[in-house]
Amino acid sequence: MINRLVEKIKKMNAPIVVGLDPMLSYVPEQIQKKAFTEFGETLEGAAEAIWQFNKAIVDAIYDLIPAVKPQIAMYEQFGVPGMTAYEKIVTYCQEKGLIVIGDIKRGDIASTSEAYAVGHLGRVRVGSRNYAGFHEDFVTINPYLGSDGVNPFLKVCREEKKGIFILVKTSNPSSGEFQDCLVNRRPLYELVGEKVARWSEEMMGDNYSYVGAVVGATYPQISMMLRKIMPKSYILVPGYGAQGGKGKDLVNFFNKDGLGAIVNSSRGILTAYRQEQYGAFGPEHFAQASRQAILDMVSDIRGVLEVTK
Amino acid sequence: MINRLVEKIKKMNAPIVVGLDPMLSYVPEQIQKKAFTEFGETLEGAAEAIWQFNKAIVDAIYDLIPAVKPQIAMYEQFGVPGMTAYEKIVTYCQEKGLIVIGDIKRGDIASTSEAYAVGHLGRVRVGSRNYAGFHEDFVTINPYLGSDGVNPFLKVCREEKKGIFILVKTSNPSSGEFQDCLVNRRPLYELVGEKVARWSEEMMGDNYSYVGAVVGATYPQISMMLRKIMPKSYILVPGYGAQGGKGKDLVNFFNKDGLGAIVNSSRGILTAYRQEQYGAFGPEHFAQASRQAILDMVSDIRGVLEVTK
Repeated sequence: MINRLVEKIKKMNAPIVVGLDPMLSYVPEQIQKKAFTEFGETLEGAAEAIWQFNKAIVDAIYDLIPAVKPQIAMYEQFGVPGMTAYEKIVTYCQEKGLIVIGDIKRGDIASTSEAYAVGHLGRVRVGSRNYAGFHEDFVTINPYLGSDGVNPFLKVCREEKKGIFILVKTSNPSSGEFQDCLVNRRPLYELVGEKVARWSEEMMGDNYSYVGAVVGATYPQISMMLRKIMPKSYILVPGYGAQGGKGKDLVNFFNKDGLGAIVNSSRGILTAYRQEQYGAFGPEHFAQASRQAILDMVSDIRGVLEVTK
Repeated sequence: MINRLVEKIKKMNAPIVVGLDPMLSYVPEQIQKKAFTEFGETLEGAAEAIWQFNKAIVDAIYDLIPAVKPQIAMYEQFGVPGMTAYEKIVTYCQEKGLIVIGDIKRGDIASTSEAYAVGHLGRVRVGSRNYAGFHEDFVTINPYLGSDGVNPFLKVCREEKKGIFILVKTSNPSSGEFQDCLVNRRPLYELVGEKVARWSEEMMGDNYSYVGAVVGATYPQISMMLRKIMPKSYILVPGYGAQGGKGKDLVNFFNKDGLGAIVNSSRGILTAYRQEQYGAFGPEHFAQASRQAILDMVSDIRGVLEVTK
């Protein structure tokens, strides 16, 4: 799957992933209204609204980008109907040829991590049959419990040729509270990065590893060091756009081959129709506003890649 | 909710929580067979089997214990039908008067953590109405992203009078890889414990805080220090029984009032019927074997509490 991701990024010349993290408040009124008319103001109605919203955006952008990253929390907040919508959007995106990175940030002790790995990337045994519950192509995972929380994911990735992105340095303001703690004069995120590098060597695709990392766009100084520590890991970079990261901050995330990073934007794309810049599209044409926002993002990031050449 | 938990623990004289973490392989054959006959060897069939297994055990033990801790990963591995079974078991246990600690170990950046908090402990807004998706009473959370990942949970706990247990030092063998890293000569888990203590002071019930901690039973030396650092936090102690923790290791987790800790056992209770000690019950009477295993655990833990007096 990492080979397929790299290939798609190269072909489209767009190291970009769109975060499908819809708040109900992002969804234009006409879609909410239609869903509530059909299903009432219920969890099912909310799930229908975010599904229709996502579907329209995916239909408008799938030819421009290699991958999407649905944030499972935004679906999970609507209970079981939300989880149903999550699985539906994973399936739909895969049918459209998109690679799906499930932003699930799971992490637990061994047998429990195994259940998460099996449920999201692998197949669970039921009697004589196997089933893939949520069947994402990649997922994000939390490393706080150490390698026996990560190993079950590695095992499933090996069997299924799928991949993971391990949280190393997150994009939020308080990420430093624990991640920046100095351990022998070096921040914890560097130690986590070194572990990721070791795991990634065990799990190589053609040029990059099935084991990637998450490093926030909001820390451009840190990115250079982490890029060096984890040369074979793809870096998933959240925080572009709404969280304050800009194109020029991204240059250090890429290797000299112009590869090695994939930049995520969520709110900036999903709510483009509300931004002054794309206001002319209006709420009826929200999906076209998202398309234009991606075209602009692609051009911004291509500018960065020119610099690395 | 923390007041209710403390009250129930006192009344039952049993600081015990049973982990409802069913692997399909734990479920006796007659229950699997029945579920597969009705629903086929499908995810729905698997979900039905673990639901019936859980229900029978809950029916046999609910009068002995204050709380249960379903591990969401064990349900999530069966996709949407598994999540449906999870919600069903949460509801059922609450109807039986049990307090439900959802072992979800979620943690993300601010707006995303808010979605998790709302989905598991709070209520999500849909049009003019509010819905509680998974409605646990407590959940476990992962602190790696720092306080802006924790704050949304605190906010919801304040509104709903619910609680959280924050991972401080987990029971698995590799928990030391990052949690034990020395930061200014002190292990990271102590710094996390200090943060938990600060959060817990902001969120007090009568004698204990709505903010608790998870500290594994497998580290009795560490427990004394963490008990001191977080005097107002209930400590959820996994690792008793199958993971190697024993009753006598637990004494340091309790305060002088005989309170302050709740000990979890999962596999040891759920699969009691397969253990030599309870073999006489046989697979048909698996729930009665679980009941006997709890009676023995209660007596073991009461012995520990005698020592603290």
